[in-house]
Amino acid sequence: MAAGNDAEVTSKAHRPRIVILGGGFGGVYAAMHLERLRRGRDDFDIALVNSENYFVFQPMLPEVISGSIGILDTVSPLRRLLPRTQLYIRDVVSIDVINKSVVLSQGFRPRPHVLAYDHLILALGTVTDFRTMPGLHEHALPFKNLADALHLRNHLIHVLEEAAIETDTELRRQLLTFVVAGGGFSGVEVAAELNDFVRRIAKEFSAIDPPEIRVVLLHSGSAILDRELTKELSTYAGKMLEKRKVEIRLKSRLRTATPDSAVLETGERIPTKTLVSTVPSLPNPLIDSLQLPKEKGKLKTTEYLNVPDVDSIWALGDCALVQNPSGDGFAPPTAQHAIRQGNVVATNIVAALRGQKKRSYSFEGLGKMGSLGYRSAVAELFGGIKLSGLLAWLLWRTVYWWKLPGLDRKLKVGLAWFLDLLIPPELVQVKLASSQGITQSHFEPGESVFRQGDLGDSLYIILRGEADVIREENGSERALARLHGGQFFGEMALMNQKTRNATVKCVSAMDVLVLRKGDFRALVSNLPDFRASFESVAKQRSESAPSVSAKDNPG
Amino acid sequence: MAAGNDAEVTSKAHRPRIVILGGGFGGVYAAMHLERLRRGRDDFDIALVNSENYFVFQPMLPEVISGSIGILDTVSPLRRLLPRTQLYIRDVVSIDVINKSVVLSQGFRPRPHVLAYDHLILALGTVTDFRTMPGLHEHALPFKNLADALHLRNHLIHVLEEAAIETDTELRRQLLTFVVAGGGFSGVEVAAELNDFVRRIAKEFSAIDPPEIRVVLLHSGSAILDRELTKELSTYAGKMLEKRKVEIRLKSRLRTATPDSAVLETGERIPTKTLVSTVPSLPNPLIDSLQLPKEKGKLKTTEYLNVPDVDSIWALGDCALVQNPSGDGFAPPTAQHAIRQGNVVATNIVAALRGQKKRSYSFEGLGKMGSLGYRSAVAELFGGIKLSGLLAWLLWRTVYWWKLPGLDRKLKVGLAWFLDLLIPPELVQVKLASSQGITQSHFEPGESVFRQGDLGDSLYIILRGEADVIREENGSERALARLHGGQFFGEMALMNQKTRNATVKCVSAMDVLVLRKGDFRALVSNLPDFRASFESVAKQRSESAPSVSAKDNPG
Repeated sequence: MAAGNDAEVTSKAHRPRIVILGGGFGGVYAAMHLERLRRGRDDFDIALVNSENYFVFQPMLPEVISGSIGILDTVSPLRRLLPRTQLYIRDVVSIDVINKSVVLSQGFRPRPHVLAYDHLILALGTVTDFRTMPGLHEHALPFKNLADALHLRNHLIHVLEEAAIETDTELRRQLLTFVVAGGGFSGVEVAAELNDFVRRIAKEFSAIDPPEIRVVLLHSGSAILDRELTKELSTYAGKMLEKRKVEIRLKSRLRTATPDSAVLETGERIPTKTLVSTVPSLPNPLIDSLQLPKEKGKLKTTEYLNVPDVDSIWALGDCALVQNPSGDGFAPPTAQHAIRQGNVVATNIVAALRGQKKRSYSFEGLGKMGSLGYRSAVAELFGGIKLSGLLAWLLWRTVYWWKLPGLDRKLKVGLAWFLDLLIPPELVQVKLASSQGITQSHFEPGESVFRQGDLGDSLYIILRGEADVIREENGSERALARLHGGQFFGEMALMNQKTRNATVKCVSAMDVLVLRKGDFRALVSNLPDFRASFESVAKQRSESAPSVSAKDNPG
Repeated sequence: MAAGNDAEVTSKAHRPRIVILGGGFGGVYAAMHLERLRRGRDDFDIALVNSENYFVFQPMLPEVISGSIGILDTVSPLRRLLPRTQLYIRDVVSIDVINKSVVLSQGFRPRPHVLAYDHLILALGTVTDFRTMPGLHEHALPFKNLADALHLRNHLIHVLEEAAIETDTELRRQLLTFVVAGGGFSGVEVAAELNDFVRRIAKEFSAIDPPEIRVVLLHSGSAILDRELTKELSTYAGKMLEKRKVEIRLKSRLRTATPDSAVLETGERIPTKTLVSTVPSLPNPLIDSLQLPKEKGKLKTTEYLNVPDVDSIWALGDCALVQNPSGDGFAPPTAQHAIRQGNVVATNIVAALRGQKKRSYSFEGLGKMGSLGYRSAVAELFGGIKLSGLLAWLLWRTVYWWKLPGLDRKLKVGLAWFLDLLIPPELVQVKLASSQGITQSHFEPGESVFRQGDLGDSLYIILRGEADVIREENGSERALARLHGGQFFGEMALMNQKTRNATVKCVSAMDVLVLRKGDFRALVSNLPDFRASFESVAKQRSESAPSVSAKDNPG
């Protein structure tokens, strides 16, 4: 997108400006180090762009689910970490490598904001992007940032509240089954915390029987954490989770998802209202759009961490491919590497500005750790030391507590961990604004979009697939019509404020656009053409298929 | 709405069921007292319906804004307060007095849920309803529940982040002006906490100059808290707030609001992006719909707190009109009264079930207190004792800390207050899912819906009012067309992905329906009739008004 004459332009001052894109470990530590290296205000400007005003301390994010630490304790305000950096809490829209500028999204006024740079640090990480997987985009919960963690937490409390008053056994089973996809560190930690939390708070729901709860972890490999740890520790982790009643499904891959189930590649459907997916991690689309040398979707880098042949662009963290100093393989996408890469990039940019010698990246890693929930963890340290259980968990807490930026956060997390020993977990469901608007939904063959007798709350437009309209009468089913792509259904109940007079059941996999009642009504009452088109289709339907009267339309 | 055969019905068990609607002070204390009076499981069932799974300790809610207590510390999970009560975390759709049942909203499955009762306790409180005030519904922030408090907090951080990078002086002024409407306890406490918070955190924004910040409190009376306190204390409160730089505007009433300003009844416009309104408190629409004796929108009650001539329905708290024992006036809508009314209702229902003698309501009130923010408060106690300043503030904290239900909450709030002395306030903006969908917006004469050069992010449909389409060229303005109710505009930029090629400026007060880009595109690409209607109107426009070519349509 080109920024026209009307854009707000923050052009360069007389001093150089270093712009950092991304506020994860890499971006934040680069900015911190730049602040340290700067000789006063006139040396250079540091600007950091991030869509949130806080830095997420990723290793502790799963603890937000169980509430063993406070909701905000795992994140730190960027402004407080980086007092000498100019913050732009905006999205990055595009990067112009030729003109050395970045276009940011609009604020309160719908104008783009253009930011010129002398040096650009790309620390954009990866994104959990479900767009490539039909059904997941619509029905799986991601787990990447604070909002995801909060959303998941609230959702868990919500399904338990509903299960406690639900009388339908099928729906009850869906509500009490929790599926996590991905057996890497992230998926394992989420499954462990989710399992701990759900089982702990379920005790306070007298109407829920603990054996009704199922937590399923799906993993495509032959053991969880098989890519991250040695066989011994990976086996230990698996046993530990199983002991806590997590069902581990190995060599299982998610194919798609619907409002009612997780569908595996084998075709098996696990009925659930809660599917969390920590895969796939895809390159940030911005990185994808750059005309710079890449491999596997990541930016290539020199040993100094700039992009080859481009002196003004630097890359680090999960969006960069950084060769190990030994020449053997690449640095893994972990915090310890991103932090040290941030320091090297900061040092080298300042060296470039001052005409000094650059430093090459030479960090080999300290080891790996993963939490397994309540008082258990696994760790594989540099030098071949392996730890598991309580000792590994204590190490995990000590190391990450130490690394947590800011004294206030250290204090708060320490206190929260202490309180967690004394008082039961948080049970409050903070209902966030439910995102309305027009959404998409995916269904598999045999599933119902709605059932006869349901309240009419949405209109559906078929994007792909077919469905049957079925009327249930006196215990028998009668097919009234078949619906195809491009058709819509469900308008009758919305216009008449009645319950559904038929069931719509998919005969193939089906994708639909969902327009909610309030939105439908607003359009119907204010756009005469919109209303006319619904009325004329209803009329057409009744004329072209006499067996399906207007009354029989699935309303 | 009648519940058909398809509803999920939770019918009565063989024992009586008491259903409580509302989880505020009245409903919760009634349930607590019923739990205490119950002689084992077979005595009677207690069910409570509330739309959230927590009880809000209203007096401390304003502290969530400044983050001096944790986000969740001011609320308590109902399940933990009421272990022997069946909870329905649903909305109440309707009440059927004849058949003694209540219809609840749908859960995951779109079916209504019917709950039969023997005794019904109405504790529904009031609602802050802006629907009667055009503009406020769309552009004012309410302050009633936890979500409102969180939303306001995030909004405050958001406007400061934006002000820090905004170069346009007019927009900057809007961003840094905060308006609170309503000079009762609620409005005063919100204004005080908001003022403290904004001024404290603004210190960390080097680009914001403290004198740029304006906090305005609007009140229709001749002194703030004039209805609640004596003249002396009300004057003290006003002086205290003014000392802290809150601008108090007396005898000022809000008429309407737009995206850019709060509009007073005098016609004066205060440019702002933050308008909080604690007025008007209206009766809950459910109470409105009941065929029971009412006065001023509140349910009449006998001295035993049942509805006159209806033995099975009881009312208390803000939705009930409870006569003072002295016969002089009615009980004010405060927590101390609701709590005691809850106890009386519980006692009397159990008395009715057991054929015992009922108790009449005889509480006269203990006094009134209001916080004025950082270390200051006012209190007027029973017996004519008046306190202000630090002493009143210490009393305020002591009393409310003592009343806070649950030991875990007491512990958490105590610690949070202690930490607040040591560490700076929370600066994290938790971005909640922005509610999308089709919304409404209100504009006053002379205001622009969008300006030439803006990014096109929405389509607008005029519900009421008129606007001019203005093209700016070489510094002069040319009116291209006048738009009226029923017409839509803004589609061009959405279809072509370009910036707006004209400004749309209101000539009268105007209400529009706003359809966002994503939703517009989804409909245009999947509903051929919808697309055709936009194309045909664009064509019509260019034919009927040759001077306004299709190119000139405000896109």
